[in-house]
Amino acid sequence: MTRASDKQNWDEFCALLGEIETISDRTQVAKLSQDYYHFSPILQPLLQDKTGDIVVLPRSESEVLKVAKLCVDSEIPLTVRGAGTGNYGQCVPLKGGVILDMSKMNNIVWMKPGLACVEPGVKLAALDKKTREIGWEMRMFPSTYRTATIGGFIGGGSGGIGSITYGQLRDNGNLHAVRVVTLEAEPRIIELRGDAVQNINHAYGTNGIITQLEIPLAPVYPWTELIVTFKEFMNAAKFGQALSQSDGIIKKLVSICAAPIPSYFIPFRDIIPSGEQAALLMVAETSLEPLQELIKNFQGKICYQKSTQETVKGTTIIEFTWNHTTLHARSIDPSLTYLQTLFPADPELKLIQECYDYFGDEVIQHLEFLRTGGNLHPAGLQIVRFTNEARLNEIIQYHEDRGAIIFNPHTYILEDGGMKKVDLQQLNFKQKYDPLGLLNPGKMRGWVDNG
Amino acid sequence: MTRASDKQNWDEFCALLGEIETISDRTQVAKLSQDYYHFSPILQPLLQDKTGDIVVLPRSESEVLKVAKLCVDSEIPLTVRGAGTGNYGQCVPLKGGVILDMSKMNNIVWMKPGLACVEPGVKLAALDKKTREIGWEMRMFPSTYRTATIGGFIGGGSGGIGSITYGQLRDNGNLHAVRVVTLEAEPRIIELRGDAVQNINHAYGTNGIITQLEIPLAPVYPWTELIVTFKEFMNAAKFGQALSQSDGIIKKLVSICAAPIPSYFIPFRDIIPSGEQAALLMVAETSLEPLQELIKNFQGKICYQKSTQETVKGTTIIEFTWNHTTLHARSIDPSLTYLQTLFPADPELKLIQECYDYFGDEVIQHLEFLRTGGNLHPAGLQIVRFTNEARLNEIIQYHEDRGAIIFNPHTYILEDGGMKKVDLQQLNFKQKYDPLGLLNPGKMRGWVDNG
Ligand SMILES: Cc1cc2nc3c(=O)[nH]c(=O)nc-3n(C[C@H](O)[C@H](O)[C@H](O)COP(=O)(O)OP(=O)(O)OC[C@H]3O[C@@H](n4cnc5c(N)ncnc54)[C@H](O)[C@@H]3O)c2cc1C
Ligand SMILES: Cc1cc2nc3c(=O)[nH]c(=O)nc-3n(C[C@H](O)[C@H](O)[C@H](O)COP(=O)(O)OP(=O)(O)OC[C@H]3O[C@@H](n4cnc5c(N)ncnc54)[C@H](O)[C@@H]3O)c2cc1C
Repeated sequence: MTRASDKQNWDEFCALLGEIETISDRTQVAKLSQDYYHFSPILQPLLQDKTGDIVVLPRSESEVLKVAKLCVDSEIPLTVRGAGTGNYGQCVPLKGGVILDMSKMNNIVWMKPGLACVEPGVKLAALDKKTREIGWEMRMFPSTYRTATIGGFIGGGSGGIGSITYGQLRDNGNLHAVRVVTLEAEPRIIELRGDAVQNINHAYGTNGIITQLEIPLAPVYPWTELIVTFKEFMNAAKFGQALSQSDGIIKKLVSICAAPIPSYFIPFRDIIPSGEQAALLMVAETSLEPLQELIKNFQGKICYQKSTQETVKGTTIIEFTWNHTTLHARSIDPSLTYLQTLFPADPELKLIQECYDYFGDEVIQHLEFLRTGGNLHPAGLQIVRFTNEARLNEIIQYHEDRGAIIFNPHTYILEDGGMKKVDLQQLNFKQKYDPLGLLNPGKMRGWVDNG
Repeated sequence: MTRASDKQNWDEFCALLGEIETISDRTQVAKLSQDYYHFSPILQPLLQDKTGDIVVLPRSESEVLKVAKLCVDSEIPLTVRGAGTGNYGQCVPLKGGVILDMSKMNNIVWMKPGLACVEPGVKLAALDKKTREIGWEMRMFPSTYRTATIGGFIGGGSGGIGSITYGQLRDNGNLHAVRVVTLEAEPRIIELRGDAVQNINHAYGTNGIITQLEIPLAPVYPWTELIVTFKEFMNAAKFGQALSQSDGIIKKLVSICAAPIPSYFIPFRDIIPSGEQAALLMVAETSLEPLQELIKNFQGKICYQKSTQETVKGTTIIEFTWNHTTLHARSIDPSLTYLQTLFPADPELKLIQECYDYFGDEVIQHLEFLRTGGNLHPAGLQIVRFTNEARLNEIIQYHEDRGAIIFNPHTYILEDGGMKKVDLQQLNFKQKYDPLGLLNPGKMRGWVDNG
């Protein structure tokens, strides 16, 4: 494959960048071209040799503008990178070129009750810590919050811890505004507010470079982390559903892992009885009493509880939920992979029961309860014993035939991993603001198919 | 009708009460025997001549115990009263006897972040004001919050402003504990915690006297009051649905009034264009921007906006929502009455559209969006042009035939106004703790039918 950037003289490019920090060391650049796509045995061979040519680390919007201009002038592909924790190769450059690493643009511009304005490179945990000083916290974050950036979360994520209350990033009101650097002939800064932010929300950095965001916050609650165990999986799942339906119980995380998943959690191995299912929960301290009633009703047993004071240090259950569950499973058995499934909103959890019975140990149930579009759904991040691609597709088909939506984590194509249809709004936005198709090339099907 | 209490010597009774405050003045007692049942032309003739014999105003739990003992000893009916703002005669004594007015037991026992412990007679607005001093507020309150008591809200209410986020009083976690004085041969104090509170929650004071409550709180948001107008009713209704589904927009009230209801709101008459529908909203200040987008999408227009600072004084839109809507309609046209309907959870609002088209001006749509059992529903507090009882029942039947649940406000019987079936838990509780059936006699069908 010849790459647009092969003929580029990178020394000259660096010289033109002036004081802007760059990394040219091949090993370093290769490392900064990768993310966590290796969770997928399908993506692994497709992406493992992909690398950019140079990493550029801007410190300001004007530096971003300068990089953008140079890329446009020489038609160099540009792939934006936050912390590179995406798990479908979102930030892996398919056609080389510039890796625009945003991690140095990590200022908090301002904070006020309920709202923060930040640069994209700020890490979610660092931001959360800062906003807590004024009594507010992030509404939601991925389980990678300690390393992931807010820009990458908006660019490549969807939701996470907190989504059980506030919905997902795409839901109305969860992203107020973004400033974006375009890749037009003359790159410039545009501001998107209101619904217009959806042009760039979860677009894998294919149609603009986010340089600033206004993100709404939630009031801080004193959170308690708990692990509750259940002998029967469906009891655990139905407990998750019941807790999620309890609007009077304040919660941030409802994560259900079927056996043998809890055995993959090294720090909790001695705590969770072998063969049992576990619910990993974050609940406000004042809601612990009603929670205990619910646990009793579903024959659960609290085996671990960490108070707000204690949660600031040491192991956090957060890092055993969402896709961290997959990470721990794979660190014990690297042949395991996963799925991402939106199960229908159904208080009876019939399809989950069916899948649990049908697949047995081949597809191990891991549910994250969340709200999306105003509805409560169990989302599956099932652990899958991988045999081959055909069988993986059969498993996907089985789910889709029965009304589940699979957000396929075995593709790096934006639309194929998402709603399976081209987002015309995002495509139009790319046509206008990245007319040469330089941004993260090869990721947006709508663009690729249009030639 | 002979009443159990007719032969009672009330002077003697008062003497035995000692220092406990009483009211015997006939006019005063008659007044304190009434509530807002007159919203119903069916209840009006049934309850208007009902009166207690004496009003007793305890100041402490031990005074309540003393009154309870005296009533048990002489088999005197005892009906508890908060502020008497119930709207189906909940606190109207059907068999005379003692009216136990709890309004003097209005202490806040303690408050901490997220939770308050209070006596039942404290007014909701007063409590809200106090908890706000520590940064917390009532999760939900009725539109009568300025006068209604927390004990009466638990005894006879269901939810209100705030239920769009936290669900209803019955939802898990919205009532932590109650202390209750029993009417056993030897009255005593029992404490109910966890699910056991449901024994007494919305029981019309038929099975125990609440003397203390632990009630969870919500973090304070800066609320903005807004009125948005719409030319088309279904646009207004669907806007209400969409806003209610937006988990990223922080809200406390989503109230939709079809024309001509807004014309009944005297202070807003000149503001709301005649013939239009109005949405009365409370939204957090930081959510105003995404709200505006939603308003635009449904062709709405903001005609009134009151900031947090301003909302502390003057007219509040709260007092034009929930059953205050009915109150304002009836003050313009006393022949109007109302219904209470739980419409199915259906984002398309098909049944609402059908009822709107079918009934026209006879049943004027007034919707309150709320969460209950974890689901979002539009609740109807429709304004009904009353002709006769048969027609009212036809209207009710029409709704029920199509899957709506009517919480009939034209009956003073607990079960008939509610889920239409005897609550065995509450009935058993009454059998145990009020074996003589002295508490608010005639209101619990399960008890009446058992003789
Ligand atoms: C173990 C594990 C657990 C995870 N759990 C979750 C989870 O709970 N929820 C969830 O949503 N995700 C989850 N993820 C995915 C990922 O960690 C998050 O979405 C994270 O927020 C990505 O942030 P990042 O800084 O690492 O972004 P990157 O991976 O660096 O980038 C992600 C995408 O955003 C684009 N991008 C980055 N910065 C910008 C910018 N400034 N402007 C425009 N585009 C930009 C990139 O081009 C790329 O396409 C998980 C991943 C792993 C490996
Ligand atoms: C205009 C209007 C609007 C309204 N809006 C709403 C609304 O939005 N939501 C809603 O839920 N209700 C509403 N209501 C009904 C009512 O105002 C509320 O439920 C209110 O909270 C009742 O409180 P109260 O103190 O007036 O109770 P009361 O009317 O005095 O009593 C209500 C019931 O509770 C019992 N009770 C009172 N105190 C105790 C106690 N200490 N122990 C045991 N039982 C007790 C009484 O016996 C009675 O059965 C409305 C009524 C009107 C007239």
